Amino acid sequence: MQNSGSKPCSCPSLKLREVASMYFTAVAAFLVILVVALQGSVPQQSHFPYKVPLDPQGLLELSWNVSYAEQAVHFQLLVRELRFGLLFGMSDRGQFENADLAVLWSDGHSSYFGDAWSDAKGQLHMDSQQDYQLLGARRAPEGLYLLFRRAFSTCDPKDYLIEDGTVHLIYGILEEPVHSLQAINASALHGGLQRVQLLKPNISIPELPSDMKTMEITAPDVVIPSQETTYWCYMAELPEGFPKHHIIMYEPVVTAGNEALVHHMEVFQCTAHFDSFPHYNGPCNSKMKPDRLNYCRHVLAAWAMGAQAFYYPEEAGLAFGGPGSSRYLRLEIHYHNPLVFKGRRDSSGIRLYYTATLRPYDAGIMELGLVYTPVMAIPPGEDSFTLTGYCTDKCTQLALPAAGIRIFASQLHTHLAGRKVVTVLSRDGRERQVVNADRHYSPHFQEIRMLKEVVAVFPGDELITTCTYNTEDRSRATVGGFGILEEMCVNYVHYYPQTQLELCKSAVDPGYLHRYFNLVNRFNDEEICMCPQVSVPQQFYSIPWNTFNREVLKSLYGFAPISMHCNESSAVRFPGQWEKQPLPIITERLPEPVPRCPPAPEPQPAAPVPLQLDQLR
Amino acid sequence: MQNSGSKPCSCPSLKLREVASMYFTAVAAFLVILVVALQGSVPQQSHFPYKVPLDPQGLLELSWNVSYAEQAVHFQLLVRELRFGLLFGMSDRGQFENADLAVLWSDGHSSYFGDAWSDAKGQLHMDSQQDYQLLGARRAPEGLYLLFRRAFSTCDPKDYLIEDGTVHLIYGILEEPVHSLQAINASALHGGLQRVQLLKPNISIPELPSDMKTMEITAPDVVIPSQETTYWCYMAELPEGFPKHHIIMYEPVVTAGNEALVHHMEVFQCTAHFDSFPHYNGPCNSKMKPDRLNYCRHVLAAWAMGAQAFYYPEEAGLAFGGPGSSRYLRLEIHYHNPLVFKGRRDSSGIRLYYTATLRPYDAGIMELGLVYTPVMAIPPGEDSFTLTGYCTDKCTQLALPAAGIRIFASQLHTHLAGRKVVTVLSRDGRERQVVNADRHYSPHFQEIRMLKEVVAVFPGDELITTCTYNTEDRSRATVGGFGILEEMCVNYVHYYPQTQLELCKSAVDPGYLHRYFNLVNRFNDEEICMCPQVSVPQQFYSIPWNTFNREVLKSLYGFAPISMHCNESSAVRFPGQWEKQPLPIITERLPEPVPRCPPAPEPQPAAPVPLQLDQLR
Repeated sequence: MQNSGSKPCSCPSLKLREVASMYFTAVAAFLVILVVALQGSVPQQSHFPYKVPLDPQGLLELSWNVSYAEQAVHFQLLVRELRFGLLFGMSDRGQFENADLAVLWSDGHSSYFGDAWSDAKGQLHMDSQQDYQLLGARRAPEGLYLLFRRAFSTCDPKDYLIEDGTVHLIYGILEEPVHSLQAINASALHGGLQRVQLLKPNISIPELPSDMKTMEITAPDVVIPSQETTYWCYMAELPEGFPKHHIIMYEPVVTAGNEALVHHMEVFQCTAHFDSFPHYNGPCNSKMKPDRLNYCRHVLAAWAMGAQAFYYPEEAGLAFGGPGSSRYLRLEIHYHNPLVFKGRRDSSGIRLYYTATLRPYDAGIMELGLVYTPVMAIPPGEDSFTLTGYCTDKCTQLALPAAGIRIFASQLHTHLAGRKVVTVLSRDGRERQVVNADRHYSPHFQEIRMLKEVVAVFPGDELITTCTYNTEDRSRATVGGFGILEEMCVNYVHYYPQTQLELCKSAVDPGYLHRYFNLVNRFNDEEICMCPQVSVPQQFYSIPWNTFNREVLKSLYGFAPISMHCNESSAVRFPGQWEKQPLPIITERLPEPVPRCPPAPEPQPAAPVPLQLDQLR
Repeated sequence: MQNSGSKPCSCPSLKLREVASMYFTAVAAFLVILVVALQGSVPQQSHFPYKVPLDPQGLLELSWNVSYAEQAVHFQLLVRELRFGLLFGMSDRGQFENADLAVLWSDGHSSYFGDAWSDAKGQLHMDSQQDYQLLGARRAPEGLYLLFRRAFSTCDPKDYLIEDGTVHLIYGILEEPVHSLQAINASALHGGLQRVQLLKPNISIPELPSDMKTMEITAPDVVIPSQETTYWCYMAELPEGFPKHHIIMYEPVVTAGNEALVHHMEVFQCTAHFDSFPHYNGPCNSKMKPDRLNYCRHVLAAWAMGAQAFYYPEEAGLAFGGPGSSRYLRLEIHYHNPLVFKGRRDSSGIRLYYTATLRPYDAGIMELGLVYTPVMAIPPGEDSFTLTGYCTDKCTQLALPAAGIRIFASQLHTHLAGRKVVTVLSRDGRERQVVNADRHYSPHFQEIRMLKEVVAVFPGDELITTCTYNTEDRSRATVGGFGILEEMCVNYVHYYPQTQLELCKSAVDPGYLHRYFNLVNRFNDEEICMCPQVSVPQQFYSIPWNTFNREVLKSLYGFAPISMHCNESSAVRFPGQWEKQPLPIITERLPEPVPRCPPAPEPQPAAPVPLQLDQLR
């Protein structure tokens, strides 16, 4: 055995792999522990309320908790089948290059833990400052538990800054022994990524009424299709004569064993314009799906992997049932099945908690950001182009009650080119508060997120939503619109008390855009047809995208007046003049957040931590 | 005495001042010392090769040395008449707000030293990290010597980063006792600023030849006018038949007592186009000054306050004398006399060291940057607008020898709106080296500076000079040109071997600028006369400066082709096509320098250092 273990590993073969595997099993039997530098209060390290599978097979399972007092995250990683170690870490968008990694590796004899970073080629390097702090490791029947801690901000330039919003977690499996951390190339490993909101808000759970009832909207024994991506649609309905209730909470119901496959789920209410909707239970993109299901788009509940139960604030609930609202509900489940498992059965869904004792306020949902129109476009080949949508003082003055509204949750939305979304509240020209920000936004991870702080919005306030897009892989302009290759910039804010204002969005004035087309044509001596019958997308597609045309488009969007949609519904505007409105003027910006670097429990040396090969009691 | 000292100081009167002064004299008699935490090698702290008066009376005299090994500056401040203390420090442009300060203060009983910073209102605060490290204080017949040390970079956000180029030093006098540092408002004090190049290059002095001779070009017993600013002109001439020599060094000759008044001096050679020039000795702006003196503009030597002797590299010298060069020289002295002293006599000037044994190479001077033309303009109200001038690969390919040239010194030049100047060398589209950079450039302090590293420039290289301007105090556009309210962006580089290339500068293509004028007019619906007879400055002056017009001008300058001046002299271009040239493409920028924060001799506590009231032996 010892001999096999010391064989050179530079020419792996099936045989060597088997031998090494046997050897490592022997090593693993002895494996572990030692609690290294146990710090902080015990509860912080023993209670992990959040959990997510990292890989599609569920062999790696991450649990964590967040200590805002310590400004740190405690991780518990369950490794069900340990080979020669693994990588776990974070990077800007889930790539394995330029990533910040905690590494557990074995050379076949000993195991080590260390904080590392990968360079632009994926090559690993030991970090000079060890900020993933190993707190312990424990063998259990189900696998190896690794416990470690990481401060949000370390001020080490090689470390990832843990911020609000999406965090792209990555993992990689070491399938052969490695003699040093430097011998690992992260890009060459079997691995993957998982998106989570790591910094969950610390919200106290409101008291629930005694007359609370539950209703499960679940898929009826679906066979998950053996393909990577499926959006499954199932129609449910409320009992006839179901009176108005308040949804005050909801939570996921995930079939045991499918935790790694159920990516996200949403319950939509259908429009009251139709008296009835057909039944359906099948893929959302099937030709068999009745067209009428497209009229079921009013979000009642939304859940994504890693999210927990969603509680409404104690003063408000989401109305459903009663006259004027549809009895029909559509459940949509996104199954993510990259390993193409066959024949998996699933009955996941969402459990609604509701009450007939109505709370003081109905909750509402308002759309902020950009109107869905091609006049807002992104040139091709941009690595970070921003578009901004405004909810102006004039609109909030008209549509909000004097006592204001309270925004308590937010769901950010773009199509595939979206990379960042931020909404800021401005009052009297001064930015006051970030409503919601995700600097690592992914269109593949659109949760409804509770805000850490409820945002009060008063008449005259402005809500400014900025989206950042990447179009490096595109050869023609990306225009605004409904298509998946067109773009949106939306923040669905959840608030109370409900008002008539459903949309507060903007787009550039079309007349100014026309001047832009004229201008770039004249400037570049291009023969582009400016005939009025040519559509805005066609005009964008025909622009020769040099730096001048790109920059002047940016300048246009930053200067030209806007057309406001200050609407009661998608088609009905509030009365007033909403064309050629001036852009909000911002005289004072919020300062960029400066990462705090808390004096963490004494920084550890830049050396791997050996794990004692000794069975823990 | 004790009673007088403890009188409240909130209502100062002449009487109280006198009493306080008497009291402080008594205190001062005891004043000082204690060497606090003496660190580093003794020579670093005892030898101060650089010296500059801080105030116009010369009551405060600063000496310093630079340790590149320690990345620190050691200061010795001589205070000739100490009252109740003083402030000394640095700020971005010499303002007393947001400044980084070392403070010596007395409450009438005890004296303290501390590192402080002033906020946006000038109010002082003790710095949480004490980075001005007091090394000692010493009483001498001429005054009190304070010795202290400061690292270039402290990574304390409240501290000034000491960089290459100009540093704005500030000082303030405490004329009354203060009970705490927090009681001081820097803006309310009697004080001033002095510009110096703090980080002098560490250059070894070349060996000087035995046949070296000297020649003093000095003003003949001038009575310094009793006004703040005087540019004095004096014509000198070389002996008839003076053959070609090489100037290999020069140094200032400043009349004793006038060190604080002589701000800068330059020796210019006149053009050889005229056989003779009239004598003159008087103010440069006098109506009596012969016009012909305007043809004496070829710089032979330049010195500014704080500068030392200037040595040519041992392979090169600046040619003067001999056929084809004028015998006539013009000395220009800038007297800065803010206290309006009357009747001060001065015979300052420059001493040239020259040799008849010619060195291998003649040194030359080349102009990089922007052509003097109104097509390059800065909108009004800009806090930092940049303009860039190019010396293209095509020009260096044609005009430089295959073995290249060596740039060893540089003089940056703008008019009054200039705030920063940087020249970068680019090769094959990649920025390689900063030729010279001054992020705190002041048009009032234009030294010839030796480069820390000689820069080799080869055929095909590009030299890109970027100037940053502030026009916040202007209401109309600032165009390029010769006037003091027009702008320039020039780097006079001193190099060898001399070539025929005297000017390598650019400006935007005038046709593209015309398109810009058309474009902004159409876009803004403005009625601006585009008639060809309207001059470029007039067109710039009539632009309504909204954000769109500003940004499109920036985009134009970053995109439009350029007209190159690749010239043998200001009027003669090298043969070739120089109009509508493409802008150099930069694919790789130099990284922004990251300040190192050397683990300085243990950081000191955020508390004032009391000075022992004990006479030093």
